[in-house]
Amino acid sequence: MSAAAPRLEFWFEFASTYSYLSALRIEAMAAERGVGVVWRPFLLGPIFASQGWDTSPFAIYPAKGRYMWRDMERLTAARGLPFKGPTRFPQHSLRAARVALAALDTPQGPAFCKAIYSLGFGEGVDISEPDVIAQALKTADLPTKLVEAGDDPMIKERLKAQTARAVDLGLFGAPSFTVGAELFWGDDRLEMALEHAMEGAE
Amino acid sequence: MSAAAPRLEFWFEFASTYSYLSALRIEAMAAERGVGVVWRPFLLGPIFASQGWDTSPFAIYPAKGRYMWRDMERLTAARGLPFKGPTRFPQHSLRAARVALAALDTPQGPAFCKAIYSLGFGEGVDISEPDVIAQALKTADLPTKLVEAGDDPMIKERLKAQTARAVDLGLFGAPSFTVGAELFWGDDRLEMALEHAMEGAE
Repeated sequence: MSAAAPRLEFWFEFASTYSYLSALRIEAMAAERGVGVVWRPFLLGPIFASQGWDTSPFAIYPAKGRYMWRDMERLTAARGLPFKGPTRFPQHSLRAARVALAALDTPQGPAFCKAIYSLGFGEGVDISEPDVIAQALKTADLPTKLVEAGDDPMIKERLKAQTARAVDLGLFGAPSFTVGAELFWGDDRLEMALEHAMEGAE
Repeated sequence: MSAAAPRLEFWFEFASTYSYLSALRIEAMAAERGVGVVWRPFLLGPIFASQGWDTSPFAIYPAKGRYMWRDMERLTAARGLPFKGPTRFPQHSLRAARVALAALDTPQGPAFCKAIYSLGFGEGVDISEPDVIAQALKTADLPTKLVEAGDDPMIKERLKAQTARAVDLGLFGAPSFTVGAELFWGDDRLEMALEHAMEGAE
């Protein structure tokens, strides 16, 4: 092992169903392997827009969408996770993503992100509502006034910059994992991404 | 176990890189689990066209395309498979798919399909060429005159009907696996599809 501890960046979008799967398992898996995780909320909206899509591909392509819901049902059942599709899909994730950036400046950040996912896809609640975001902050032992980060110009700029960096790294979907410049896409690649982080640190 | 042996349908497209991965491992994995495999060549072109795409999404969306080639490099390296991107992508797979339908009327059908994949993505050869298809037929111990199935009106209709059935089953990409009406998409879901086939037969 070199002096550098293995590290992986976890790129997620609160509107992304498959990101829910990774958010709920990444900490235990990374800890087992001694890999540090940096949580990176970003927005898929601007990336999809640059591809000519005005919403999620699961909403645009019905066969792909129908499959995704069934696939999520099977995967959450196999992992013992609650799952309830939200009334509105895709969820409006902008405010939650901004608050996550602020929350991630504290050690409770990952707990907040997991709470948002559990509300959005475990219970099917509308995560754009400030009250719902406040509930997730409470779950994570964070002050509910952090909801105001959703209106903070500095945080807005940081989220834009983080999304721009995601594009520079070649991201086109979520969840994604990066280890340096190496990109892994999808919850199915989490194991491989962690292996890669471990090898790079040897 | 009921009297019915577990069975899975394997839907593949010769232009699909990830189908190469499944074609080269499905027989051994299914045999280990006592699951029968029915090979189902079909065409993605008409399905993509119905979504408004005139070529592969990997050709339309550059970030997705760049990622796919890197992902394939990593996966083939991990599995010890040769991999060479073809000069033309997507490959023109129509004739090979028609010949595969005819070849699959014999026990050597899967060997022919694997030979086409090994030529197309292991060596990067143009699989639309009748000489290349003839080479795959020889590898599979089949008569090279089967190349003519590419011009057989009956075979053309059978391939159209098979592609229509794929659409009815909800397919939108390849490889896909079906067990009855249950759909699994992507080489990453092969294990889960096989498990499902086994459970259904219990």
